[in-house]
Amino acid sequence: MYVQDLCKPDGRALSLYSRRPLAVSAPAPSPCAEPQHANPHLRWHPLRGEWVAYAAYRQDRTYLPPAQYNPLAATRDPAHPTEVPAGDYDIAVFDNLFPTLALAAHDAPPSRVPTAPADGHCEVLVYAQDPHAALATLALSHIELLFEVWAERTARMARKPHIRYVMPFENRGAEVGVTLHHPHGQIYAYPFVPPIPQRMLAQERAFNIRHGGNLLVDMAAREDGARTLYRGAEAVAFVPACARYPYEVWVTPTAPVASFAALTASQRRDLARALKTVLLKYEGLWQRPFPYLLAWYQSPLDGIAHPETQLHAQFYPPYRSRERLKYLAGTELAAGMFAMDVLPEETARQLQQVAAVLEP
Amino acid sequence: MYVQDLCKPDGRALSLYSRRPLAVSAPAPSPCAEPQHANPHLRWHPLRGEWVAYAAYRQDRTYLPPAQYNPLAATRDPAHPTEVPAGDYDIAVFDNLFPTLALAAHDAPPSRVPTAPADGHCEVLVYAQDPHAALATLALSHIELLFEVWAERTARMARKPHIRYVMPFENRGAEVGVTLHHPHGQIYAYPFVPPIPQRMLAQERAFNIRHGGNLLVDMAAREDGARTLYRGAEAVAFVPACARYPYEVWVTPTAPVASFAALTASQRRDLARALKTVLLKYEGLWQRPFPYLLAWYQSPLDGIAHPETQLHAQFYPPYRSRERLKYLAGTELAAGMFAMDVLPEETARQLQQVAAVLEP
Repeated sequence: MYVQDLCKPDGRALSLYSRRPLAVSAPAPSPCAEPQHANPHLRWHPLRGEWVAYAAYRQDRTYLPPAQYNPLAATRDPAHPTEVPAGDYDIAVFDNLFPTLALAAHDAPPSRVPTAPADGHCEVLVYAQDPHAALATLALSHIELLFEVWAERTARMARKPHIRYVMPFENRGAEVGVTLHHPHGQIYAYPFVPPIPQRMLAQERAFNIRHGGNLLVDMAAREDGARTLYRGAEAVAFVPACARYPYEVWVTPTAPVASFAALTASQRRDLARALKTVLLKYEGLWQRPFPYLLAWYQSPLDGIAHPETQLHAQFYPPYRSRERLKYLAGTELAAGMFAMDVLPEETARQLQQVAAVLEP
Repeated sequence: MYVQDLCKPDGRALSLYSRRPLAVSAPAPSPCAEPQHANPHLRWHPLRGEWVAYAAYRQDRTYLPPAQYNPLAATRDPAHPTEVPAGDYDIAVFDNLFPTLALAAHDAPPSRVPTAPADGHCEVLVYAQDPHAALATLALSHIELLFEVWAERTARMARKPHIRYVMPFENRGAEVGVTLHHPHGQIYAYPFVPPIPQRMLAQERAFNIRHGGNLLVDMAAREDGARTLYRGAEAVAFVPACARYPYEVWVTPTAPVASFAALTASQRRDLARALKTVLLKYEGLWQRPFPYLLAWYQSPLDGIAHPETQLHAQFYPPYRSRERLKYLAGTELAAGMFAMDVLPEETARQLQQVAAVLEP
């Protein structure tokens, strides 16, 4: 993997990644000439015991611009700069123009509740230069490169001592509020372990103490095929028995792997096959682009090895059937108990029946 | 308050409430002639440490029927029965036809994860007979009656020893997935304390041990007016400093009150004024019906007094501005850190400027 680091005229960082040596000569573009000085802050929610981030300037962010302006496409006309340059590269990562968390955040305003600078980091990751591509259409080797990029971005954040958790994710589709349709994901680096990964870690730790080993590896190994979408030598994809969303799918290595950085080359290869199989089944299910939220969980950055935790992806699709969205409402958002209208075995059966042909 | 209990031909219960003596002579109607035999089950989510409910038959539930069929309107034509009879009553409560939780649930199927019968209870509460009414348009005395009904429904559930938590809530508006537009709410009775109330209780308990008293009463008392929407002698409504949703509002008595049942008559009166003030401001903000999720938190039903916990309402509106929905995506749903584009002080200021004229 080759990487070229650039700096945008507004001070934001841009990195280009490729399998081939990189020599992008164009300057790093930005649709914004002025430095941004984002200064988000955190407030403590005493009743829930969690941080909430406030970034008021985000209200004005780019919102479904017309097709002729795609800030994630390569800059063709220097008079209309986008976020990424023209040139021969595969993946681009740059600092979010409207960050929820910003490393330079400082002097959080006082409030009735405790406050702190929201000094994390938010990046946009452009999967590919083709605006009509999708994660599902990327070559397996491109997805493997993506895993390496996620590992490298996590390693960069790990060098900031106050960063505690790095979560790559993708919001896909207008149904989940996506503002730009060019294939891309995001990476959030948090100055604390957020509540949901924290809860998972506690559960994984409790399992490890009680049974030894790794909870998720154990769950994946027990899947007997009824909900399995892919089982390779080193990776597996399945609808979990405890799915909270219709068509929810988890993807994970079969052996314990705590982070992207810990993946071997052959694990990356099989994990890419597992991931692409799920994505092709999603696209094939209703023969149309399939919206989802995709999140990758990995070990926290607290300087301690976490053999009990497992690198894995969770997909949360917003549809409960071809025509109907699943709305999160009273019981999900106010009580925290998810209610499912469809059994995981049924959505797994539907997805199993969709062909997914991978390149060899 | 008067109550009349009836039984529908399909076996479901119906209760009618009024300030006046009740004598509804019509039989209890039901759009469904056959008993339902709902048998939902729970599965344990090992990675999150929480229960998920599965009620597969809910997939077929009534969905935005044409205006001419409103199952929550009084039955006019016995050939086309609705859920509630004609007659002189104010509020109706009946067993949900498509329950996520059902007291009769039994024999949960085995799975790869632990399972249990989903033996809670789900009720629909029709606020008023007028299909064009809304919580905001109800008379204050009607809202006070509603508080008494919620107390009475909670007391009924408290008699089932395995029920641990009762949460009244309302999903309002197509934006939050509402399938019926007749003004109504729901009541879920859970056979466990769900994760979010459980977390709140733990925070309230920790505050009580450390500082004495009641966390939410303390938070409400510290509000200096910058985010306050209503302050009466016995109730307050405010945008919390730690709001996670734009236009989020909390409503609570100013003195410690653990449940609807513990409200005095004068607290009910002022809490109704606080609630209606918020609702009128919501309706007035953009001069159109304002969608929201409204949840009421109260003491768990574990046989112990909970002076540290506080009866209160939380409103979660789905809009972040007049035209734009706030989507819950990566950081909210996968990490559990909410990201706000607008400061609570700004939404409070907007709501403060909206007039809300209550009847005397």
